[in-house]
Amino acid sequence: MKNAVNREIPEELLKDGKEVYQGKYYMDGKYIKRDPPKTRRYVKPQSSKLCSSIRRACERCGAHDGMTVSFHSEFREGDYVASMVAKVLVEEMGLKDITIAATSLGNAQDLIADYIEQGKVIGIQTSGVRGRIGEVISAGKLATPAVIRSHGGRPRAVEAGEVHIDIAFLAASTSDCWGNAKGVGGKNNCGSMGFAIHDSHYADHTVIITDMLVDFPNRPSSISAENVDCVCVVDSIGDATKIATKEARVTENPRELMMAEHAAEVIAATPYFTDGFSFQTGAGGPSLAVNRFIEKRMVEKGIKMSFALGGVTSAVCQLLDKGLVGAILDTQDFDMGAIKHLAEHPKHHEISMSEYANPANKGAYVNQLDFVVLSALEIDVNFNVNVITGSDGILRGAPGGHPDTAAGSKCCIIVTPLTRGRMATVCDAVVTVTTPGDCVDILVTDYGIAVNPLRKDLAQCLDAAGIEHVTIEWLRNKAYSLVGTPDALEWEDQIVAIVEARDGTLLDVVRKIRPLQLDG
Amino acid sequence: MKNAVNREIPEELLKDGKEVYQGKYYMDGKYIKRDPPKTRRYVKPQSSKLCSSIRRACERCGAHDGMTVSFHSEFREGDYVASMVAKVLVEEMGLKDITIAATSLGNAQDLIADYIEQGKVIGIQTSGVRGRIGEVISAGKLATPAVIRSHGGRPRAVEAGEVHIDIAFLAASTSDCWGNAKGVGGKNNCGSMGFAIHDSHYADHTVIITDMLVDFPNRPSSISAENVDCVCVVDSIGDATKIATKEARVTENPRELMMAEHAAEVIAATPYFTDGFSFQTGAGGPSLAVNRFIEKRMVEKGIKMSFALGGVTSAVCQLLDKGLVGAILDTQDFDMGAIKHLAEHPKHHEISMSEYANPANKGAYVNQLDFVVLSALEIDVNFNVNVITGSDGILRGAPGGHPDTAAGSKCCIIVTPLTRGRMATVCDAVVTVTTPGDCVDILVTDYGIAVNPLRKDLAQCLDAAGIEHVTIEWLRNKAYSLVGTPDALEWEDQIVAIVEARDGTLLDVVRKIRPLQLDG
Repeated sequence: MKNAVNREIPEELLKDGKEVYQGKYYMDGKYIKRDPPKTRRYVKPQSSKLCSSIRRACERCGAHDGMTVSFHSEFREGDYVASMVAKVLVEEMGLKDITIAATSLGNAQDLIADYIEQGKVIGIQTSGVRGRIGEVISAGKLATPAVIRSHGGRPRAVEAGEVHIDIAFLAASTSDCWGNAKGVGGKNNCGSMGFAIHDSHYADHTVIITDMLVDFPNRPSSISAENVDCVCVVDSIGDATKIATKEARVTENPRELMMAEHAAEVIAATPYFTDGFSFQTGAGGPSLAVNRFIEKRMVEKGIKMSFALGGVTSAVCQLLDKGLVGAILDTQDFDMGAIKHLAEHPKHHEISMSEYANPANKGAYVNQLDFVVLSALEIDVNFNVNVITGSDGILRGAPGGHPDTAAGSKCCIIVTPLTRGRMATVCDAVVTVTTPGDCVDILVTDYGIAVNPLRKDLAQCLDAAGIEHVTIEWLRNKAYSLVGTPDALEWEDQIVAIVEARDGTLLDVVRKIRPLQLDG
Repeated sequence: MKNAVNREIPEELLKDGKEVYQGKYYMDGKYIKRDPPKTRRYVKPQSSKLCSSIRRACERCGAHDGMTVSFHSEFREGDYVASMVAKVLVEEMGLKDITIAATSLGNAQDLIADYIEQGKVIGIQTSGVRGRIGEVISAGKLATPAVIRSHGGRPRAVEAGEVHIDIAFLAASTSDCWGNAKGVGGKNNCGSMGFAIHDSHYADHTVIITDMLVDFPNRPSSISAENVDCVCVVDSIGDATKIATKEARVTENPRELMMAEHAAEVIAATPYFTDGFSFQTGAGGPSLAVNRFIEKRMVEKGIKMSFALGGVTSAVCQLLDKGLVGAILDTQDFDMGAIKHLAEHPKHHEISMSEYANPANKGAYVNQLDFVVLSALEIDVNFNVNVITGSDGILRGAPGGHPDTAAGSKCCIIVTPLTRGRMATVCDAVVTVTTPGDCVDILVTDYGIAVNPLRKDLAQCLDAAGIEHVTIEWLRNKAYSLVGTPDALEWEDQIVAIVEARDGTLLDVVRKIRPLQLDG
């Protein structure tokens, strides 16, 4: 069955109430009965929840074959905990048929790719997948299709019972013996624990894993002890210096800076660019650089931002320190400066992924957003964006908050170079749709700007401001003229991943790529 | 069927899995599948959740006949919101068959007694009931038995689906337009909103009612906007100067001071009185006064308290300011000094009722408590305590956190005068059991101290410290010799209230008192 972004969704996936994607507001106003955890009652006096080992904690929480465990990804490339726990489950305890529900997976979890190949890990649910895990999934080695969700779609799915977490293993920079835990105050700080908080509310069991046990009470805390069964102290939960990956650094690339400047011009041309506007940038180089140019525009116009949202870099913190931003609502920190800023600045607030972007709660912050500036691996002539599969069809990306902020914001701007190497970024049809075109308003490339025909109002604003724009078909043609029309990828039948829209409807599927092309 | 405190529980109440009370740890380790809210999805962009009136908010939240609404009692005798909302529901909207689930009810809600008499309000679920509501319930005018639960039993019952809240109306001293709300920063501050937080997690709909709208984001907040449907701004939510009722003032009564001093002696004689001990006092005069004497003992011994728990007065705040208390975990504030202290002191933390005392979560703070000092209306020779019915059998009290702290603490001390007026406080059998005797360790009266025979270890400690103690039967005899043996109350068959143990089992029932005695 074709969905609203013209993708064929196999009938066998349309069971248990699953529907195809039907537009960004399809679920608005509908009610949902949440699926709660099944939890153990602790009635007796107790002085501590400390466990002597991860294995002991697993046993206390009833770890078993076939269970679903969750991890969060605030430590990004520096995370030790997911692999550490997976090793205990698979190698020490000999468990099998495990599903891993993570907020993101990458090189730090390459060990899990082995367990997928061994058939011990049979399910992956994530908002991002890079490294060897993406490769083995794309090679069809995972027993069930991976499920890819946005940052808002994940808590929605957890609340809906579509992901039921048996045990959440949550890395925390500090914890007390009772399980009050947070991302600051330790030797490995990650800052916001926005990815972990919601899991602690909905997992049957929660285990805090920390390398810095602090005095009780470790309050205010990100994770409340009332949701924690066990606390484990380990030598090291990760390498916080690896949190800042290359994606989060501010670009010095002139082409990227030019695009960022154009994006800022576009923003300044819209009616939303008034005192008290709200703003988010993705972590990609060019979109991150928009912060630099938006500052100039704000000062010129004498206006301030009410709040900046999402993943946070030092660049945004500096805007707050200059008095140009009223508050930061922070789901994750991309660099050490942002981590320090969260710990110290009273207007820099941690928020959970559900508060940030859950489309089934009572109003996520993305619904209040004026502007979001995002990157793309590909964007097609219907403004559908792909941020999960590479041009070779391999899973190597992360929807993250992309689909959520695009849907919730009044003006979603995609900034991307027209070509990358020999690949056209603007194309006829993206390999995989991760953000539907009805959520994307404006595309800024190094060869020109295009406005989604659904947003004639924004096209008029650009006209009024004297900002030239072209059709997206013109940009595609230009891209193809530069690097050639791409050959179609060749797929096998096997579905290796399902891409869910943030509301739980089915947006796209990823099939196994033909092995020949893996080597090509 | 007789329960573990020898009370006859009518068979007709033992349905839907309800059991009789079987001892304080009966439910420990058992699992519970929580009952989650059914909530509305908000997907579309939105700039504010403000509603022009309470009625409009009720309509948006689907207010209907037969629904259950909740209120919190942080404003105590100064609360305007419960009556204000009840009036809208009953008089403006003409709704009927309403159940009110409140954290406590008193004189500030006398209007609701009218609605009970009119048959509009047919159910009451509360942790305390005073004023006219208690009188009309005791007179058999409520259509269904009121359900009395402890502060920990209430969130447990909500999570278990035994109380399903359709709309929570939560008074907040400040809120932003998105529903981030707290008890400080406004013109009527209540301090901790510990009573309200859990309702916002489990109610189908949440309406914030405030008299101080502040800039977005009002973070960190007690109530998260993700759980809020609507925000209403009214002229005044209450009179915060009425929060401090007479119960919360420190006594100057010499008899009460003497008992408090003896309680402190008892505490100092136990093995738990070491550096890092934890402590809670109730809000009653004599138990509150224990703070004064415990300070002297701590200084003498050179030890400090790790944390003070529960409802907070200035007395405890001063101990923290002197460096004698490491932290305060605060469910409610009893006076203006405590409210101010919460807002200003980084070691004074707000906690929810669930975090405080819920016996079905993953470990409430009461489970860590060393000492609790509590009052009683009556205590019987089995150490069962009554804090709900007066000696006339009328509902006029509040279990609050009494049963929770008694069960969770290592040493529960009841401080009460042997007689009040012409009534014996220590008696053969309390009118109503609200805290089971297996949770109570030591009784301190103005005529002597008694130790529960279950706690021979504590009796030995008192002996070792040279503290005289007697049997509780001796104290009963003494009381009866002073004021005479009380006449048995005369009851009708109608059950007007059910007292649930904190774990949801049935502890006792309250029947309609014979009218003649109401006048006697």
